[in-house]
Amino acid sequence: MASIKPSVPKGTRDFSPAEMAKRNFIFDTIKSVFRKYGYQQIETPSMENLSTLMGKYGDEGDKLIFKILNSGDLIDQTLLLNFEELLQDLNKKAMTLDLEDIDNEFEDRAEDKKAIWRNVNAKSFKVLVEKYYTAQEAFSLYRKVNANLINTTSEKALRYDLTVPFARYVVMHQNEISFPFKRFQVQPVWRADKPQKGRYREFYQCDADVVGSPSLLNEAEFIMIYDEALSKLGLKDFTIKINNRKILSGIAEIIGKADNIIDLTVAIDKLDKIGLDGVINELLGKGFTNADIEKLKPVILLEGTNDVKLNSLRDALKDSVIGLQGCDELETVFNYIGNCQLINATLELDITLARGLNYYTGAIFEVKTNEVAMGSIGGGGRYDDLTGMFGLKDLTGAGISFGADRIYDVMEELALFPAESNQTTQVLIICFDTDGEKYALPLLQSLRQQNISAELYPAGAKLKKQMDYANNKQIPYTILIGSDEMQSGLLTFKDMVSGTQEKLMAEDVVARLV
Amino acid sequence: MASIKPSVPKGTRDFSPAEMAKRNFIFDTIKSVFRKYGYQQIETPSMENLSTLMGKYGDEGDKLIFKILNSGDLIDQTLLLNFEELLQDLNKKAMTLDLEDIDNEFEDRAEDKKAIWRNVNAKSFKVLVEKYYTAQEAFSLYRKVNANLINTTSEKALRYDLTVPFARYVVMHQNEISFPFKRFQVQPVWRADKPQKGRYREFYQCDADVVGSPSLLNEAEFIMIYDEALSKLGLKDFTIKINNRKILSGIAEIIGKADNIIDLTVAIDKLDKIGLDGVINELLGKGFTNADIEKLKPVILLEGTNDVKLNSLRDALKDSVIGLQGCDELETVFNYIGNCQLINATLELDITLARGLNYYTGAIFEVKTNEVAMGSIGGGGRYDDLTGMFGLKDLTGAGISFGADRIYDVMEELALFPAESNQTTQVLIICFDTDGEKYALPLLQSLRQQNISAELYPAGAKLKKQMDYANNKQIPYTILIGSDEMQSGLLTFKDMVSGTQEKLMAEDVVARLV
Repeated sequence: MASIKPSVPKGTRDFSPAEMAKRNFIFDTIKSVFRKYGYQQIETPSMENLSTLMGKYGDEGDKLIFKILNSGDLIDQTLLLNFEELLQDLNKKAMTLDLEDIDNEFEDRAEDKKAIWRNVNAKSFKVLVEKYYTAQEAFSLYRKVNANLINTTSEKALRYDLTVPFARYVVMHQNEISFPFKRFQVQPVWRADKPQKGRYREFYQCDADVVGSPSLLNEAEFIMIYDEALSKLGLKDFTIKINNRKILSGIAEIIGKADNIIDLTVAIDKLDKIGLDGVINELLGKGFTNADIEKLKPVILLEGTNDVKLNSLRDALKDSVIGLQGCDELETVFNYIGNCQLINATLELDITLARGLNYYTGAIFEVKTNEVAMGSIGGGGRYDDLTGMFGLKDLTGAGISFGADRIYDVMEELALFPAESNQTTQVLIICFDTDGEKYALPLLQSLRQQNISAELYPAGAKLKKQMDYANNKQIPYTILIGSDEMQSGLLTFKDMVSGTQEKLMAEDVVARLV
Repeated sequence: MASIKPSVPKGTRDFSPAEMAKRNFIFDTIKSVFRKYGYQQIETPSMENLSTLMGKYGDEGDKLIFKILNSGDLIDQTLLLNFEELLQDLNKKAMTLDLEDIDNEFEDRAEDKKAIWRNVNAKSFKVLVEKYYTAQEAFSLYRKVNANLINTTSEKALRYDLTVPFARYVVMHQNEISFPFKRFQVQPVWRADKPQKGRYREFYQCDADVVGSPSLLNEAEFIMIYDEALSKLGLKDFTIKINNRKILSGIAEIIGKADNIIDLTVAIDKLDKIGLDGVINELLGKGFTNADIEKLKPVILLEGTNDVKLNSLRDALKDSVIGLQGCDELETVFNYIGNCQLINATLELDITLARGLNYYTGAIFEVKTNEVAMGSIGGGGRYDDLTGMFGLKDLTGAGISFGADRIYDVMEELALFPAESNQTTQVLIICFDTDGEKYALPLLQSLRQQNISAELYPAGAKLKKQMDYANNKQIPYTILIGSDEMQSGLLTFKDMVSGTQEKLMAEDVVARLV
């Protein structure tokens, strides 16, 4: 046992002190901006009821939810109590069924725990009375029993994102909440994705959402939040792309293909990679006509400033009520932003932006840095019915998210983490024996009283070991207290970066470090 | 579906903005003190391999670990591949076995997955050839299949505490770490305990530990960390109790009952509640003699200052080498502390303190507030072999923990949360139409440029609604911009606490709030 090399589950990570300092710098910066814009922090439990999460992320998402086993006795108590009675029933019933019927019934009533058990046990019994089962049958039986057990032994799962728990929170606490409710949340989420470079099974999400306010001022403020937070992190050149779901609907509408909006946007989204001809070929392949494509061209090839693009769009979408509504919404956001100044962000209308079409109903955002090659470092949008899934209708919401892991990688590549972000000890006091320790303790305490992060290396270690400790921990200053220093009262104060050292009285050392 | 009232799993909690602000105040304060003493933050994954956690917390602890289901196909792939082959083997074998044998074999080889399957399938087959199974047998079979499935379908579990993951971290990263390694960690842990008042299934632990340093300076610094952090949180009167495992061993040794140290300490621990007579009765009941008790009395009834107690202990333990070693260790810690000043803490030698006897080998700490009735709000100690469980021997560790939930309750009861800890918006700008919005935006931006947390309520809401919003969110100031204000340039600035309001130019409002 003891010789097994310990490891962490695949797709998860430890964060060292140096990494934590950098991550804290990112999160603290973003949080401070959220707060400045009136967003308030909440936290929700890591576990949610399975019923809260299932069915909210599509079939693929459901599979990626990490389920937690019920604790204690793993057998559903109700099933246990009824087991004998049930079994007699089933056995009777099974005599008259053949395997086909059982399979069919199994499929039809998969939601019903008792029905599942009935089938499994009936099938076992059927097998039994036939005095024979093939390996294949046994295998299939096992799979079903397995699947059923899972259903009866897990009622909780790990949070998959922050949005669904937030919706649940809003519905549960609706009577305590003063709307519009502006909340931010920075917590880990878990996904059973295949781990690969840059994709983890546990990672932090960093979201701000507002519910209960249809005003486009919120969208404008999201742009300012991105601008301020990313600028504060040191990013100099990044683009906040904005689009509106209503414009995409309008585009589909003017060519009479409202139902094909997904095919359309998937194709247009590839413009960057495959060029206009590629997009046209893909559209033709999906059943769009040449006439459709002629109508689409001016939209796809939109160029110029945001105002020029917006004018071209208005022209192209003049026959679509919803399309023009999308244009109005974008214009309102641009007007808000026109009244302010962006620090380092470029705001760009990009009608090829089509993320989250399943849930976004208005604005769509995506943020990209122009300094290094990297996927989006943020995204968001407006969703008109966030809390409907939990029975609270007609609450509109809008939100954005920061991709902390990617922002970390960008900042690392551009060397943007300031030295001050390293939350390490400021000064190490070095001594050699218990006399030195006794001499050092009052100094140590007065340093800390001045809010200076300070350490005294316990007596008994050689100078080299203590210096290595300071270097490894990137401690910028050391104070050496040997017998000379104790006699003269002049301590050796060393700048570990420049290597220079000088002799100073204790009080001067403190003054130097404050 | 939609009408199901959403809830959170039992034993878990949402934290509202007001609660988060208070929790952040506690955690930020403690973290800042940890940092000041040279402790650095790490984080470990929420999930650990089951093999990392199991067997580390005793049988009771193992049961309280939340296990996570493997994602994807729930059937162990190796088992699948071998299933047909296995089954044929098993069927052959089963013909010659009777149920008794199978049961016995099952018990003996429970660790071996294949053996488990062999038994289960053999038993199924046995049942099969007998053309009959009773409900009882089927039930027992089901239990076994169930248990086996669980074994093959979960390899990960949620962190149960921060200590075992820390030990795992140290072993995995030993080559990057510069010892002594002083780390702190503030993360949630999960326990499948029966939820009750004040006991949750998800709660934060807040730990500082040092590994690789036997110096008692660490113990002294833990006392100073408790003192400083709790004083900063506003606690005025609290006791840091200290004991030493070696003293407890010495006490058991002098009466020749080293093996009965648990019975002894459990009884002494009740002195407060049941008095000396109660303790004596309990000891007599556990097989201690009257002669033992005569020897124990001076120890149990220890009184006076820490120095006086220590002298009495030295006298009582004069024949126990280990006991005297414990006295020496305590004295060293007292000497360190004697060189400093405690702010609000009382340090008290308490030989009835006996927490963590299974792992602590030296100092034992416990912290209690004297201002309200509450269990311990902190605890810790030294453990000589933290990382041995993962194969890295001879690394001594010591650590402390803050009980954040209880500290929260104490602070709430004593109204210790400062108003500044409420991380809310500083000022709300109130306007009524889009003209007002446009007028307000530059002011909003200049407030934020001065780092003032500010909000503009989107146009279109009545004054009362906006005032309610400010009150509910406990926003201390509002700026009202109506048509008069826009004409005159004199804005209505209101102190929401005192209710006073005055007319100020925009720049004066900003100056007032900076």
